[in-house]
Amino acid sequence: MTTWGESHGPALGAVVDGCPPGLDLAAAEIQQELNRRRPGIGPGASPRKEEDRVEILSGVFEGKTTGTPITLLIPNRDAESSDYDRLRDVFRPGHGDFTYQRKYGLRDHRGGGRASGRETAARVAAGAVARKVIAQAGVEVFGFTAELGGVAAERFSREDIRKNNLLCPDSRAAEKMSEKIKAARAEGDSLGGVVEIRAAGCPPGLGEPVFDKIDADLAKALMSIGAVKGVEIGAGFRAAGMKGSEGNDPIGPGGFMTNHAGGILAGITNGEEIVVRAACKPIPSIGKEQETIDIHGNPRRISVGGRHDACVIPRIIPVCEAMVCMVLADHLLRQMNNPRHEA
Amino acid sequence: MTTWGESHGPALGAVVDGCPPGLDLAAAEIQQELNRRRPGIGPGASPRKEEDRVEILSGVFEGKTTGTPITLLIPNRDAESSDYDRLRDVFRPGHGDFTYQRKYGLRDHRGGGRASGRETAARVAAGAVARKVIAQAGVEVFGFTAELGGVAAERFSREDIRKNNLLCPDSRAAEKMSEKIKAARAEGDSLGGVVEIRAAGCPPGLGEPVFDKIDADLAKALMSIGAVKGVEIGAGFRAAGMKGSEGNDPIGPGGFMTNHAGGILAGITNGEEIVVRAACKPIPSIGKEQETIDIHGNPRRISVGGRHDACVIPRIIPVCEAMVCMVLADHLLRQMNNPRHEA
Amino acid sequence: MTTWGESHGPALGAVVDGCPPGLDLAAAEIQQELNRRRPGIGPGASPRKEEDRVEILSGVFEGKTTGTPITLLIPNRDAESSDYDRLRDVFRPGHGDFTYQRKYGLRDHRGGGRASGRETAARVAAGAVARKVIAQAGVEVFGFTAELGGVAAERFSREDIRKNNLLCPDSRAAEKMSEKIKAARAEGDSLGGVVEIRAAGCPPGLGEPVFDKIDADLAKALMSIGAVKGVEIGAGFRAAGMKGSEGNDPIGPGGFMTNHAGGILAGITNGEEIVVRAACKPIPSIGKEQETIDIHGNPRRISVGGRHDACVIPRIIPVCEAMVCMVLADHLLRQMNNPRHEA
Amino acid sequence: MTTWGESHGPALGAVVDGCPPGLDLAAAEIQQELNRRRPGIGPGASPRKEEDRVEILSGVFEGKTTGTPITLLIPNRDAESSDYDRLRDVFRPGHGDFTYQRKYGLRDHRGGGRASGRETAARVAAGAVARKVIAQAGVEVFGFTAELGGVAAERFSREDIRKNNLLCPDSRAAEKMSEKIKAARAEGDSLGGVVEIRAAGCPPGLGEPVFDKIDADLAKALMSIGAVKGVEIGAGFRAAGMKGSEGNDPIGPGGFMTNHAGGILAGITNGEEIVVRAACKPIPSIGKEQETIDIHGNPRRISVGGRHDACVIPRIIPVCEAMVCMVLADHLLRQMNNPRHEA
Repeated sequence: MTTWGESHGPALGAVVDGCPPGLDLAAAEIQQELNRRRPGIGPGASPRKEEDRVEILSGVFEGKTTGTPITLLIPNRDAESSDYDRLRDVFRPGHGDFTYQRKYGLRDHRGGGRASGRETAARVAAGAVARKVIAQAGVEVFGFTAELGGVAAERFSREDIRKNNLLCPDSRAAEKMSEKIKAARAEGDSLGGVVEIRAAGCPPGLGEPVFDKIDADLAKALMSIGAVKGVEIGAGFRAAGMKGSEGNDPIGPGGFMTNHAGGILAGITNGEEIVVRAACKPIPSIGKEQETIDIHGNPRRISVGGRHDACVIPRIIPVCEAMVCMVLADHLLRQMNNPRHEA
Repeated sequence: MTTWGESHGPALGAVVDGCPPGLDLAAAEIQQELNRRRPGIGPGASPRKEEDRVEILSGVFEGKTTGTPITLLIPNRDAESSDYDRLRDVFRPGHGDFTYQRKYGLRDHRGGGRASGRETAARVAAGAVARKVIAQAGVEVFGFTAELGGVAAERFSREDIRKNNLLCPDSRAAEKMSEKIKAARAEGDSLGGVVEIRAAGCPPGLGEPVFDKIDADLAKALMSIGAVKGVEIGAGFRAAGMKGSEGNDPIGPGGFMTNHAGGILAGITNGEEIVVRAACKPIPSIGKEQETIDIHGNPRRISVGGRHDACVIPRIIPVCEAMVCMVLADHLLRQMNNPRHEA
Repeated sequence: MTTWGESHGPALGAVVDGCPPGLDLAAAEIQQELNRRRPGIGPGASPRKEEDRVEILSGVFEGKTTGTPITLLIPNRDAESSDYDRLRDVFRPGHGDFTYQRKYGLRDHRGGGRASGRETAARVAAGAVARKVIAQAGVEVFGFTAELGGVAAERFSREDIRKNNLLCPDSRAAEKMSEKIKAARAEGDSLGGVVEIRAAGCPPGLGEPVFDKIDADLAKALMSIGAVKGVEIGAGFRAAGMKGSEGNDPIGPGGFMTNHAGGILAGITNGEEIVVRAACKPIPSIGKEQETIDIHGNPRRISVGGRHDACVIPRIIPVCEAMVCMVLADHLLRQMNNPRHEA
Repeated sequence: MTTWGESHGPALGAVVDGCPPGLDLAAAEIQQELNRRRPGIGPGASPRKEEDRVEILSGVFEGKTTGTPITLLIPNRDAESSDYDRLRDVFRPGHGDFTYQRKYGLRDHRGGGRASGRETAARVAAGAVARKVIAQAGVEVFGFTAELGGVAAERFSREDIRKNNLLCPDSRAAEKMSEKIKAARAEGDSLGGVVEIRAAGCPPGLGEPVFDKIDADLAKALMSIGAVKGVEIGAGFRAAGMKGSEGNDPIGPGGFMTNHAGGILAGITNGEEIVVRAACKPIPSIGKEQETIDIHGNPRRISVGGRHDACVIPRIIPVCEAMVCMVLADHLLRQMNNPRHEA
């Protein structure tokens, strides 16, 4: 999978190579996933209207994948790049402006260019293809808000996820989270949180033994999302404080009795539910004034107003799901190489 | 970099390809790193004597690297595989026994085979080469124990790291950690902890913009170590609870004023110290009896006694360092491709 | 570099990743290369009007490359796929119809789908970017017709290449080639030939020592073009009949005295001109009736009329040049990794 | 697959990753292939005694592959590197001495170092593993001498290949070839030739559609052997002189009626025999005096006597077979990814 495109260029998109032939695939299905990522969802949403309309340019013939590369294109429509003119020479704190300038010697300053969160639209589109691949093997991926603005979900109700627009499995916690978002927005500030992704129905045996462990690939995939600063599998950082007798999952004739491993042992799926969490930092674009410098090194004070979300959650959830779907699809297809596979 | 070898096969090793020519390289330097990983270091150490003697089989001529693949070989000497006969048909909880059996249909049951922690000796050897590469660019990598058995280091003294055998930057905390280890060992139990790795002197501009962000590669590299269940960069999971105005690092004419980013912005190094933490689960081999099944699905009770460490820390620290050195070396070499690079 | 797209889908294109930042790049420059590949050039040309208009969708900002992926899009305009309805169930001899059906279980039968020669338009577009990269290092790539329909060029005049529309360095041979093409077309038949590509100004030291020798990569790149059935470097198949004393290129203080090696020794460039030749089979779409079967295995007779070229030469020359440019660009950028490089 | 090692270092070897688990594999089987490559076979053989004894260091447990990396080690025994001292400062014509010096700034001058033909022993060892993988799918690979010193085989008898020590399918031609070799040796000169490799029993559907066509991978694999200067598939360069009506293979209910395609259509196997030919240049090490320069640029005259073969054929045949086996094994395993595959 390759994505390309800048926030304010003519379009962005993805090329998905290696998809098996003969799968039903329609633009409408991909669109459905994209709609879950669009702004105006959730109380922290940005008013910017991104009408992300995906087109399939190749790899599908008469409604079925052909086995050749699938190209997905999302034209950029509501891209008012003149908004960004005043940012041309200044580095926004918490953004890639400084590092891009140092790496490349020049940068597309409009809305973050390649580093923009808009790039993730292409990931969601490509993830929709991966989701179809894994669905064929009976794997279902879903995500939810585990923590937001310091408020943690205290119970898990799958039903609640659908009920509140923060996709939180604890609707009462969701209310407190909404309050936090409103307060942060009023202050011109922003919030972070923790997203949890689960994959049910995953066969045992996926993952490679050493460097390409499936948890290593999941960690890379999630950490490659701009806002993510931490990734953990199963008990994760909590495992560091456990004893071996607490952390080991005992095995019984009916399967594992607990799931501290998060469905992965020695880098290979064990048939239990896969559980991954990603820590997301607060959105760096805030109205509050911050100290920074311009490209000549002079001190500047900057307020990054405009049409930005106050919290990356819940919009980032379909992005995290898409990345997990892609890793699982990749390992499912790899494992078919293995003549002894039980996957 | 490729590693190969099982815990109880004739040898294990690594092939390092892509190392620049003309670097001084001696087996003794690699040996030095390996010695830091050997058992008998730290109070949680296993009595198994692994005399890891590394040999350089290729890629070095008259003391200098030639630019061709460097092969490092570590013969297995103290491998009493008969110890493991009683484990042939049973799955140890917390180990890869179950998943290897399901993936491959057969497995080398001796000491974990390919999934054994011994495989990391090859990583440490290869990491010693990477460390030389990055040292040329002025980058220094070091690690320490941030938390062990629930006890966290409360202060950071670089000197302390050298003073206690847990490599803890807070010698008083180290004493409490030692107590915890002794107690766990007495109970036939084991402990986990958190390792922190820092890289100083890293030039800005390392890392690729989208999927191959340098933090994504660091997350994959560390998560590919068997014991690691979580990885975080900079403020990591703490960032999820911050506001944007707290989490953003303000920039001044002299550089960044704080380092919540852990030296990485938008996947690219910003010139500040790189800070990564890895959560390590407790060692799964414990004397305490556990419930499990055999390969026929029958319930069994098992006590995995023998020559095992009670805590993976501090022996895992040089392994984590090696992985970080390899990722940095890789990105340093890549960035030289960039005619505008400042690296 | 990734290409995507089918002959008769909505569009085809390429994504070029890894291009250095700060290079001037305009769609017009890429268009110029594409125009060299368009039909209506040369006496063997197809009357199908492919108005290949390339658009740059990403990776270029204010006329300069940004270092991020460059996406090139070529909409398909003149695609009358109904022409192909009668081919839906029948395998054209010499085409990929049979193998695609066996591999994927279904295929886009319109104009060859993914296997169509149209896919090479994307290669030419991407090659134009690579050509700019190598031009910066002083490397110039050009190709010509060495043989066509059994007629070989007997002299080499760089000027002649520009004078005749077969791009033949021997204008008298070019006349005979034209006659051959006319005769083949009259018979409803087609012709093949040999293309030679040369790269001047290439620095010594490009290429990796073992599997990724630069001649190995050139061979793969050219053989990946549908019509190519053979590739040779320097003296190539003639070298098989030479003695060592004839085939070795003596070295003098001023450089190599001959160039049987074609500019490559032990997989690494030696500073002399790189010389590669590709044998192209005749175009398989011919008016003459041929024996074949349908997808049910029944014998059929088929005449593939329509708007096809009688000879793949000279249109294939810019495609071969593009592939050579991409391999050289790739190795030039890789060699910059090498701190001792002279490239 | 990775190989490593220099001609005169302590050892050379290969790491084969991705081999399916559960395959019977013994060192003796690999040894058998290595013995076919050893000197003293054929009239052009070098008197150097390379007792290549292969050891399996990892990836095999109780006689079966485990699915983890297989490491093969071949110690260097008869390595008199002092023979090469007089070559330390001089570039042998036709060798990689010049290009290695320019690329790396230093080189292991002993016997060609990494560029030595000895590196191919590791390929043969690794190829023996690949041969086992493809044998399971019913694929058999064999090679023979098609041309040597300008003498071509004029008939094909599979039996003859086993009868003469040049592995020529035409024993009468083999006699003439032997005469040519004796004459060349007497003159202190060397010869080249053409090797043909065939693969029978290959299922249709192997190969990827665009850049990773199976013929592209075969071309790269063969061209990566030092002596090879040209590769052709099926009719190869002869196809350039054919008309479409001659070159296309008609299809009948019983299969393809001819095999000009060499078993590959549009980069994908069609179920017919795969036919590949590699043009090998004469061995560059000759006794005859040649002009060259030393590393300071001074003219020198050099005679490379010693223990060298007069012709790379037939010893290169198992090397070419090994490369073909590896490409086929790779594509067979890849195709298993394809849920619709018929392979």
